Amino acid sequence: MILKAPIRGLFCVHPNASDYFCGMSDQRFSYEQLTRFVQSVFEKIGCPVPDAQLATQALLSADLRGIDSHGVARLSGYVRLWEVGRVNARPNIRIIHETPSTAVVDGDGGLGLIVATRAMSIAIEKAKQVGTGWVSVQNSNHFGIAAFHAMQAMEQDMIGWAMTNASPLVAPTFSKDRLLGTNPICVAAPAGEEPSFVADLATTTAANGKLEILQRKKQNTPTGWVQDAEGNSAHDPNILKQGGALLPLGGDREHGSHKGYALGAIVDLFSALLSGANYAPWVPPFPAYVPMPSEQPGKGIGHFLGAMRVDAFRPVEEYKKHMDHWIRGFRNAAPIDPSQPVIIPGDPEREAELERKAYGIPLMESVVNDLSQLAHQLGVNPL
Amino acid sequence: MILKAPIRGLFCVHPNASDYFCGMSDQRFSYEQLTRFVQSVFEKIGCPVPDAQLATQALLSADLRGIDSHGVARLSGYVRLWEVGRVNARPNIRIIHETPSTAVVDGDGGLGLIVATRAMSIAIEKAKQVGTGWVSVQNSNHFGIAAFHAMQAMEQDMIGWAMTNASPLVAPTFSKDRLLGTNPICVAAPAGEEPSFVADLATTTAANGKLEILQRKKQNTPTGWVQDAEGNSAHDPNILKQGGALLPLGGDREHGSHKGYALGAIVDLFSALLSGANYAPWVPPFPAYVPMPSEQPGKGIGHFLGAMRVDAFRPVEEYKKHMDHWIRGFRNAAPIDPSQPVIIPGDPEREAELERKAYGIPLMESVVNDLSQLAHQLGVNPL
Repeated sequence: MILKAPIRGLFCVHPNASDYFCGMSDQRFSYEQLTRFVQSVFEKIGCPVPDAQLATQALLSADLRGIDSHGVARLSGYVRLWEVGRVNARPNIRIIHETPSTAVVDGDGGLGLIVATRAMSIAIEKAKQVGTGWVSVQNSNHFGIAAFHAMQAMEQDMIGWAMTNASPLVAPTFSKDRLLGTNPICVAAPAGEEPSFVADLATTTAANGKLEILQRKKQNTPTGWVQDAEGNSAHDPNILKQGGALLPLGGDREHGSHKGYALGAIVDLFSALLSGANYAPWVPPFPAYVPMPSEQPGKGIGHFLGAMRVDAFRPVEEYKKHMDHWIRGFRNAAPIDPSQPVIIPGDPEREAELERKAYGIPLMESVVNDLSQLAHQLGVNPL
Repeated sequence: MILKAPIRGLFCVHPNASDYFCGMSDQRFSYEQLTRFVQSVFEKIGCPVPDAQLATQALLSADLRGIDSHGVARLSGYVRLWEVGRVNARPNIRIIHETPSTAVVDGDGGLGLIVATRAMSIAIEKAKQVGTGWVSVQNSNHFGIAAFHAMQAMEQDMIGWAMTNASPLVAPTFSKDRLLGTNPICVAAPAGEEPSFVADLATTTAANGKLEILQRKKQNTPTGWVQDAEGNSAHDPNILKQGGALLPLGGDREHGSHKGYALGAIVDLFSALLSGANYAPWVPPFPAYVPMPSEQPGKGIGHFLGAMRVDAFRPVEEYKKHMDHWIRGFRNAAPIDPSQPVIIPGDPEREAELERKAYGIPLMESVVNDLSQLAHQLGVNPL
């Protein structure tokens, strides 16, 4: 079933909305249709049914929220990791150390989608007991979008944190070497009558997905996104294939890239130095065909999840009243261009979700073909 | 006593080191000399001796670390706030709500230098008990540099966090209005044989102190630092006096300013929405002559302090071994320019401290004159 696309352009004005959305050749699929397909794939590689359901929900939350680079487009990538033995479909996820407010979780090589969800449940349980809960994770894999995990806390009137390290694509300020991942930070905070505040940001000027969009459009990157193998400012969106690097948020020293670098480092610290996962250039790459780093100081990829009970600080109603006031103050701030009001973090993704639930999720032709081949290879029903 | 200045230029190559350092007309004063003077001022306005000692140590940590904009240059600013009744020299700092891992502290209008230090002590005590401690603070004032507070945790083999909101000078992406402070985030993490990792960053492209340097030099700001009152890109370092605004880290939307804006918002959330302090444009201004905002949704300025016991996650020795490995990996990364190696967050400030402890702290003539007038006004011994 291919859903008919709605009128185009509605969301393209949103700066955070994926440019994929505007692709005229995209086919749309319902969320339910994609759910059936993705779950069948996860079951086929051996995930227990509840895990397959959870992994599907986590993965497709990216597609719903318009973060197409992190959703079903990566499904075959996870399967390739499973094929080479780098994803364990039946992991024994367990706490290896804990205090009342903290834990370290060994993900046993499981899908990060599952491991991080379990870790967040542990953080939430600890917050129920002592006000906050903080879980650092080792021996995991790519966990999808950070927001999916952080947002779990909001259902309990808690503020959620999620971070993860990732394959090294980012050069620290002053270096030619790729030593950090795009290392995102997400904070999800509930409000009252207003929609919640969900800030989910890579600690780079632009994430890799944005380069892929420009590659397809055959357009150059703006200054401050990438450098070449020698560390010179570059504008070629394919430069990472030639030894180039993504730049930390800020772009260059004059524009604060040392801050983006420090933020990426902080994510590495909480995700890996506290858990015993690999860090810096030793983080395992997501593409299964990329050789593993020769040195492995830790285990797998690392994440960091946190949950903070609002009422561990102040009455929830007081907090929500002030959050609504804060949000309205920003939403109604004087715009520079009247056609572009101030955006609250999480607005574009929430609007994308409403639209995609109603009209289906658009997939590029290359993704549809990839999923078709995957179905054929695994012997599951095609989309 | 004016110390003889060392050979100039040694630290000027460091991008984080203050440009004040290079002023040829600066006088140098020993740390002990400044300590005696500053403490006498805090005692004169009524601070109990232990509080005056602590406030002096916190304030001068900025001068030692090369963050001249936040040190003794602000002393008269604190006194002006005391004069208009906005600083309480004998506050009753108390916990108004707590759980095993959290607390909210009412600073009773005290010096932020004192209030935040007490709040960090509470966070550390909670971490000793349950692994981590998190304290949100209301009814406080400017707390000096975030690093002073975060670094307290390292003495106990803990990782420290410090954030604070501040007077609104920053426009969120797409707006003309100044709704956020420079809202810094600091994370201080101990290492083993290597010096510790201390990232202390304003969530703007450049902090206000950098504009002051350019004002004195009569130079323009780079693109992406400030905008004018209408939201146009600007290069005049005096633009804030004409209704302009600092820009969030990233500068503009194409370069990720929505991420800097989100980070500044996160600081506001933890510092004020969780504590009941004022937030967004309602944060009280630091200069006593600037009128208070007409609306006061909360109390005073807000801070957020956190302490995480390393051994609540893993054995300290394992963590330190990996931190040293991480730090060496970055320090030895291939530089773009061989004369400018990669910097670990905290390196320039630590080097400034070594140099200033040995050769004294340079103060600009205008600051020396201001302190001289302050001594005269209060009847304390001049510098």
